[in-house]
Amino acid sequence: MATLKRFTKESLQILLNDIYQKYGFSKGDSQQITEILLKADMTGIPSHGVQRLKYYDGKIKSGQIRVDKQAEIIKETPISAILDGQSAMGHLVGKAAMDLAIQKAQQAGVGIVTVRNSNHYGIAGYYAELASKAGLIGLSLTNSRAIMVPTNASQPFLGTNPIAFGMAGVEDSFLFDAATTTVSYGKVQVYEKRGIDHPETWTLSDYDPSFTSNKQALAPLGGFKEASGSHKGFGLGLVVELLTGILSQGGTSDQISENGGICHFFLAIDPKLFGDKEAIEKSLDAYLQRLRDADRLDAEIPIYVPGDKEKLAKKANERQGIPVDDVTIAEIQAIAQDFDIDFPTPI
Amino acid sequence: MATLKRFTKESLQILLNDIYQKYGFSKGDSQQITEILLKADMTGIPSHGVQRLKYYDGKIKSGQIRVDKQAEIIKETPISAILDGQSAMGHLVGKAAMDLAIQKAQQAGVGIVTVRNSNHYGIAGYYAELASKAGLIGLSLTNSRAIMVPTNASQPFLGTNPIAFGMAGVEDSFLFDAATTTVSYGKVQVYEKRGIDHPETWTLSDYDPSFTSNKQALAPLGGFKEASGSHKGFGLGLVVELLTGILSQGGTSDQISENGGICHFFLAIDPKLFGDKEAIEKSLDAYLQRLRDADRLDAEIPIYVPGDKEKLAKKANERQGIPVDDVTIAEIQAIAQDFDIDFPTPI
Repeated sequence: MATLKRFTKESLQILLNDIYQKYGFSKGDSQQITEILLKADMTGIPSHGVQRLKYYDGKIKSGQIRVDKQAEIIKETPISAILDGQSAMGHLVGKAAMDLAIQKAQQAGVGIVTVRNSNHYGIAGYYAELASKAGLIGLSLTNSRAIMVPTNASQPFLGTNPIAFGMAGVEDSFLFDAATTTVSYGKVQVYEKRGIDHPETWTLSDYDPSFTSNKQALAPLGGFKEASGSHKGFGLGLVVELLTGILSQGGTSDQISENGGICHFFLAIDPKLFGDKEAIEKSLDAYLQRLRDADRLDAEIPIYVPGDKEKLAKKANERQGIPVDDVTIAEIQAIAQDFDIDFPTPI
Repeated sequence: MATLKRFTKESLQILLNDIYQKYGFSKGDSQQITEILLKADMTGIPSHGVQRLKYYDGKIKSGQIRVDKQAEIIKETPISAILDGQSAMGHLVGKAAMDLAIQKAQQAGVGIVTVRNSNHYGIAGYYAELASKAGLIGLSLTNSRAIMVPTNASQPFLGTNPIAFGMAGVEDSFLFDAATTTVSYGKVQVYEKRGIDHPETWTLSDYDPSFTSNKQALAPLGGFKEASGSHKGFGLGLVVELLTGILSQGGTSDQISENGGICHFFLAIDPKLFGDKEAIEKSLDAYLQRLRDADRLDAEIPIYVPGDKEKLAKKANERQGIPVDDVTIAEIQAIAQDFDIDFPTPI
């Protein structure tokens, strides 16, 4: 079991802002990247937080992530746009693209933005929530390097291809964000870094002992058997693939190489197209509360609406600080040391 | 094990057209309903085909499905519409709504149509395929009476809430259509009617022996445990619920009663918003073929692209006739007899 140390959000903000500015990003861009990374850690999704710093570090230093580039609009209508990410940092590309989708939805009712030639953009839910915080319905999809094994296949072919969807009520909110694999590889990594066993079929090596060497061959949501719904998780991953890699003409997960080429899809819809916005939002609030109040299998275990656990984690981490495992600490310390940046003291 | 008899498509067409006209539907509407029902049987989805006739029969006779009504537009923009289904037959409401979404997408690039006060509309994929056959990307969602048990809950609260997505290439095509439960209740029914055991956790009674009496409490895709992704299937079902029941202001699955109130969501997108349509279609063809050519776990078992099995079933059923189990045959015979309609002879 790995040791976890806790840091104040502010101390990690300073650290990450400094590191990203040393790479050559502007102060504003560094703050934006930091915001998305720490949002993941704060909301209990460490797989997509600071533990990815070493991964991004390698890609920035190798030039796969281009510090000097930003997304460019290739084609645009009042309701749509396609962007070339120009191999810029995925978080910056994603933010620019969803902002554009939101702007279009606010003016025309709907905004659809596809993106090619981007990089890993962190938590898909961040972008969906940008829309829901603006009073819209938000959808955020991305492909990634091949890691999901299709039903009946013996090789990874799709990415984890997450689906994130956000919608807010007047007082309550819904934020779904999940890979179409049973778990993300980030989760497998966190379990390995923290030395915890997992009980279910997450990888091909869990399912078929002849594939023991490859932990990077993930089961679709629904596992590897059709009777448990393997083809459904696989099919949902394909839907993401078609809306990202195919529709943006940027390339599918099986074509994404160490040189990048990740594609995204963003959709924002204004609910007022369909009726009174406040009435819709109030009915969402009421629905989510009815759902939480449903009968439970175990009285001690709540029924969580997507987003609830993240809100609870945020409250806890605001109080206690952000937990970081010691493998990740060592990785970030090495990056900071290279730049002669002080590493913060744990709480 | 139930006996299956096979019928020509033509003989079932005549039978269903006659039955639906006897209920009072026009000839055109009867043909439309028949087309959607037989499409399900032809493509190997008997859960949504003629085995549902008795279910619809009860609802037509009780007045839950209104023969004399049709969907009405409540509010419309060039890119959107909201319809009141007026408790008409769901298949007719769904067809009208997706046709409207397609028309808007052909003119404005995108069409989003939400529907309230409808009824069960058959296979969700039929409507997604209407869009893909028109050269568009199609999405079709519906809620239904509560039957999915949320993660940690002990009562059904969501519908099976399927997601259907269609996109066509130049020569190939993709059609995904799946409940966000591990299986649809129609599938549980077909297994029961045909007397076949199933090996996996499909219902709450499979998971927890204290719920033996209720077969109508289905597992989300991912089962009942978070480690196998239960919360993901549950969350996807909620996404469907929000886009159908909440956005249309028609009511969520937990509110759908014997008096109806099913809600749908349809989206059509013209790929040409994002680039050269033919290039996108060709890259889809190439991608689907690469996918089928991926390495297999078992050389004898192909990698099926969503839609492939349906195409194979259609070819087989065109040759051999449509299989119908004897329980369903007896049910339809009783309906036909009431109307003094001849029942066709099996092949």
